[in-house]
Amino acid sequence: MYKYFVSVFVMVFSIFGMNAQELKSPNGNFKMIFALENDGTPTYQLFMKNKEIIKKSKLGLELQKDKKSLLNDFKLVNEVRNTFDETWKTVWGEETEIRNHYNELALTLKQNETERQVIIRFRLFNDGLGFRYEFPEQKNLTYFVLKEERTEFAMTGDHTAFWIPGDYDTQEYDFTESKLTEIRKLFRGAVSENASQKQFSDTGVQTSLMLKTADGIYINIHEAALINYSCMHLNLDDKNLVFQSHLTPDAKGNKGHLQAPCVSPWRTIIASSDARDILASRMTLNLNEPCKIEDTSWIKPVKYIGVWWEMITGKSSWAYTDEIPSVQLGVTDFIKAKPNGKHAANTKHVKEYIDFAAKHGFDAVLVEGWNEGWEDWFGHEKDYVFDFVTPYPDFDVKGIHEYAKSKGVKMIMHHETSGSTRNYERHLDKAFQFMNENGYDAAKTGYVGNILPLGEHHYSQSILNHYQYVIEKAVDYKIMINAHEAVRPTGICRTYPNMIGNESARGTEFQAFGGSKANHTTLLPFTRLLGGPMDYTPGIFEMDIAKLNPNNNSHVNTTLANQLGLYVVMYSPLQMAADLPENYNRFLDAFQFIKDVPVEWSNSKYVEAEPGYYITIARKDKNSSNWFVGNSNGYNARTSTITLDFLEKGKKYEATIYADAADADYKTNPQAYKISKQKVTNKTKLQLRTAAGGGYAISIVEVK
Amino acid sequence: MYKYFVSVFVMVFSIFGMNAQELKSPNGNFKMIFALENDGTPTYQLFMKNKEIIKKSKLGLELQKDKKSLLNDFKLVNEVRNTFDETWKTVWGEETEIRNHYNELALTLKQNETERQVIIRFRLFNDGLGFRYEFPEQKNLTYFVLKEERTEFAMTGDHTAFWIPGDYDTQEYDFTESKLTEIRKLFRGAVSENASQKQFSDTGVQTSLMLKTADGIYINIHEAALINYSCMHLNLDDKNLVFQSHLTPDAKGNKGHLQAPCVSPWRTIIASSDARDILASRMTLNLNEPCKIEDTSWIKPVKYIGVWWEMITGKSSWAYTDEIPSVQLGVTDFIKAKPNGKHAANTKHVKEYIDFAAKHGFDAVLVEGWNEGWEDWFGHEKDYVFDFVTPYPDFDVKGIHEYAKSKGVKMIMHHETSGSTRNYERHLDKAFQFMNENGYDAAKTGYVGNILPLGEHHYSQSILNHYQYVIEKAVDYKIMINAHEAVRPTGICRTYPNMIGNESARGTEFQAFGGSKANHTTLLPFTRLLGGPMDYTPGIFEMDIAKLNPNNNSHVNTTLANQLGLYVVMYSPLQMAADLPENYNRFLDAFQFIKDVPVEWSNSKYVEAEPGYYITIARKDKNSSNWFVGNSNGYNARTSTITLDFLEKGKKYEATIYADAADADYKTNPQAYKISKQKVTNKTKLQLRTAAGGGYAISIVEVK
Repeated sequence: MYKYFVSVFVMVFSIFGMNAQELKSPNGNFKMIFALENDGTPTYQLFMKNKEIIKKSKLGLELQKDKKSLLNDFKLVNEVRNTFDETWKTVWGEETEIRNHYNELALTLKQNETERQVIIRFRLFNDGLGFRYEFPEQKNLTYFVLKEERTEFAMTGDHTAFWIPGDYDTQEYDFTESKLTEIRKLFRGAVSENASQKQFSDTGVQTSLMLKTADGIYINIHEAALINYSCMHLNLDDKNLVFQSHLTPDAKGNKGHLQAPCVSPWRTIIASSDARDILASRMTLNLNEPCKIEDTSWIKPVKYIGVWWEMITGKSSWAYTDEIPSVQLGVTDFIKAKPNGKHAANTKHVKEYIDFAAKHGFDAVLVEGWNEGWEDWFGHEKDYVFDFVTPYPDFDVKGIHEYAKSKGVKMIMHHETSGSTRNYERHLDKAFQFMNENGYDAAKTGYVGNILPLGEHHYSQSILNHYQYVIEKAVDYKIMINAHEAVRPTGICRTYPNMIGNESARGTEFQAFGGSKANHTTLLPFTRLLGGPMDYTPGIFEMDIAKLNPNNNSHVNTTLANQLGLYVVMYSPLQMAADLPENYNRFLDAFQFIKDVPVEWSNSKYVEAEPGYYITIARKDKNSSNWFVGNSNGYNARTSTITLDFLEKGKKYEATIYADAADADYKTNPQAYKISKQKVTNKTKLQLRTAAGGGYAISIVEVK
Repeated sequence: MYKYFVSVFVMVFSIFGMNAQELKSPNGNFKMIFALENDGTPTYQLFMKNKEIIKKSKLGLELQKDKKSLLNDFKLVNEVRNTFDETWKTVWGEETEIRNHYNELALTLKQNETERQVIIRFRLFNDGLGFRYEFPEQKNLTYFVLKEERTEFAMTGDHTAFWIPGDYDTQEYDFTESKLTEIRKLFRGAVSENASQKQFSDTGVQTSLMLKTADGIYINIHEAALINYSCMHLNLDDKNLVFQSHLTPDAKGNKGHLQAPCVSPWRTIIASSDARDILASRMTLNLNEPCKIEDTSWIKPVKYIGVWWEMITGKSSWAYTDEIPSVQLGVTDFIKAKPNGKHAANTKHVKEYIDFAAKHGFDAVLVEGWNEGWEDWFGHEKDYVFDFVTPYPDFDVKGIHEYAKSKGVKMIMHHETSGSTRNYERHLDKAFQFMNENGYDAAKTGYVGNILPLGEHHYSQSILNHYQYVIEKAVDYKIMINAHEAVRPTGICRTYPNMIGNESARGTEFQAFGGSKANHTTLLPFTRLLGGPMDYTPGIFEMDIAKLNPNNNSHVNTTLANQLGLYVVMYSPLQMAADLPENYNRFLDAFQFIKDVPVEWSNSKYVEAEPGYYITIARKDKNSSNWFVGNSNGYNARTSTITLDFLEKGKKYEATIYADAADADYKTNPQAYKISKQKVTNKTKLQLRTAAGGGYAISIVEVK
């Protein structure tokens, strides 16, 4: 690890405010120009290799009416330039070391009328631009309420966008590919039902937003280090093709309560003419603070199975009984209730999962539906919905703990909150103590349904504060958190690597709820995954859900080989084999890849990538010289041509290739795969046909 | 303690629904008639000694639009009658035993269209009526959201009302005496400024509401056992003179989220032709559940002084420094900050208070402003505003604890939350542990300013749930709670007697904020105190606040003798001597009464009472044969004529009378008092002149 730091302090007099400020990336490819308009409105503009990629765009914040807004009337009063170059070690990640290299320009603006100061800090990396607002301690600006952030991202043309509807409460949408000018007409059709949802504009979309220009430049807009601020959406002015920041409101409609000194999250623009560079960008992580957890030895990547898919498909139930429509925790007597016979989280069944995990080398077993309250947990905005410590009568916490321990398997706790955040916080210490006592060192949290306190949204400042509170509280108990339905990640896992996963996008569960688009996983790595890993829960082998539950005719819109490829394509330190053991037992040869694939990597190579169409990634196992390759393919059958030049020169390897069979198709023949083995070196070129909705996985083991 | 219980179960067929149901009080004085209108709307009507005191009034609940409301279309399907008679022991109170005696009628109503059932339970006592809605477990009604409760209280005439403006966030108003029809025009003038306030109607008033009819009947409307429901206000239809229930909304405008089985609070109507009976009524307590705390030995009434009035008057400050406009707890370094020289909660000064408490026999010392955060605690809707465990550099928690302990004095902790309820809950366990470790067994909590979560109100269901959570959590730590700015009490102190106090009305502090009306304390016992004791903080001896702080020209609108009388008139197990030690030292002869007056009583007699004009109460010390009498007088100077017939026959006593001097007047000569002693028996008649805003106090000690 090395560090290189240069500071240049330049006092700028007001006369300098008339001039534009320029900042270049370390390699010179990017250039950012900052300028003040005649009325003192700050603007920025971004170029890549002298080509404009963000047109001149305004910066500023609109305050609630009791205060003059921070939009204009500014002069430049100070300028500080830095260069930073450091390589830091990851606790887990796509590689063991990440270089954080940028040139920085911090501009202090002073508002003439109010004498308030705002610093706009730009960091220009070789992969893109990050900037944020900073509010230093000062006399005339301490507490203020945002009416809206007014950051613009002015597009240079009618780009192709891969977007999901902007929503204050959910990200669980399929992506739509369209021109920017087509968003409005396609918007309503892109909104599918969710347990909690609230759109705000027919041209509102979410970040991270993936764009492609007509001349082949890939641009990604997102945010980093979203802490104590409200989550940003992008609202398109589709006349002028300008995206405007749109923050998530609180219950009163305000967009944020700020107290100087403080900073906004970073607004990020990653760009390249090679789509693979977007996947390789670590800008989002780099813009976050270094790890704040001193001892990270207890944070460990996990490959797991779970009592889960059988409930998602409707084969089993989370609830213990069908007789109690109204649970009152501590009052309702479950021992007297008649079991419904479908409750999956029972001791015997859980032990079967533990046996399967032990047999096949999984680290852990997740169990959902273990605790009292699932009979009426959803849709009632119920405050005291779970207590997180009381198991159903048929779930023997101690016995399961001992059994799992004897088999060398960890248990993963499930904490569904039903969106009732206060209730979760009230029980958090006891719930984490309970986990410590019973050998659970990871919790999957969930926020299904409308948020309590009522009127708040999943992505409003106060609720983001809750998610962060849970993460930091979990550190006290050495617990890893995998939060579902929480806000989309923005690289905070660098600072708090105990946040080993998030859902925050349309996960595999939707394959049992009607299906997702076949190219969904060719987009997630370009969007959702830029902020941190996703608990996508791949590994479905039985695509016809009716086989599990005759009343569910959903279809999993991928081939089996694609499901295998996802273990490499969709990076996560937390990887699930989501299907039922009985389905894996039917395809043990394919299952071998899931058993073999690691969850810790030392290095990653982005071999092929085109958002919406295909991704091929190669990763090196952290604990061996083996490599693993994964491919996910979109709607068009395609031949993937790759060279294994990432392998170590001179070494010999054996590759096991799990590919789509010639007649495979995600709709008509998803389970048609073929497994082949061949000797390979770093010179080997492979041509692999991928079906529509297909993919492949390769394990490459060094031959010694 | 005895208990007498009779149950009569009567199945009523639908034909009975046409008939009215009648219920009489045990002594036959009250009669309640329930009837269904032709359209199945439930109604009730109340008579006292055959005189109508509540006209036929509708009952029901309006639900949010997804469900048919519970307003009409009902038939009567079951009727259960009970008689209950039990005498229970108080943990503390105006007497040691309370009789709970009523006749009960529970009517099960079934809605024809929906088949939903609602039980309306009436309890008719000798002092008035209580009724509530009950929602039994049933198929067609589990979760429901109230749009409004539609309970009516139809007045029989244009009564005189003693009212304060209905408000979702504060009760800290002066009372207005007016005819019902005058409320609208007087409303705006009755609204004074408060840190958080929200009125809803120009004829909206608060409970408990005190009324007097033209023919001299006193009627009080309030609620009892307000748990897991929203606080009720009364909105007057001033054309028809009908009060309609108006619940406090949540952030979304809903009035309550209910889950059957559940019950509403009791709606109470206390009535008598003798105003003293209103003061003597224990109906509100009786309608609450018995004590749920098994071991109550740690709950002890407290007489205390505090580092408080000097901040209220502006003589001293809660804040440690004037240099930090923006505190970030855990970041801001107070050790480096320059003290403002006015910070009262410093070790030396607190020890002076401890010395004074020890010297004069007070149980405890309250200290406000001891913890970091007061520099910017108010008005910013700041989330992380206090941590409740970090003292300022000049407040030595351990040293003070040891010093107080050595002097036999308890410390009372102050937990101002600034309305940030989530933050308080997050710190509650640690704050209570900190109290346990440092010898504090009582906390004064505060909720000044707008409630967080934003959009919620001080009296909405979710926030009431918070206050209740704090009370119940405090039980775990054996901590007594005195909550300020929380919801007005409704007798819950019977169930949780660790709730030893509440503010929830305009307290003495307003005498330093411009003054309260001189008859204020002739109304509080008829209104606010019906639900539970108030931490009114009497005992101000220096009425000219400018003497403490030249910049504050507020005047305390009572005489000194009145201040003494309040220790008896304003029952509380928690009584403060609120003025500064230096002021008590100037009037040590008068101060003697405060030293002598107990905070535990075995019996209370309501000697004279007229709301708005005067109250005289006599109470017997729980631990001796001594009696204490207090009087508070309103605007008109008056001679109070009382007979000491409550004294034990044949015993001899010496009375020390602390009365207004002949020339006393709350405005012009408030400190003019005279102290006299005389021998008295149960035959003694006293005539005591009380000044405008005056009063008196008498200690009556048995001569053995």
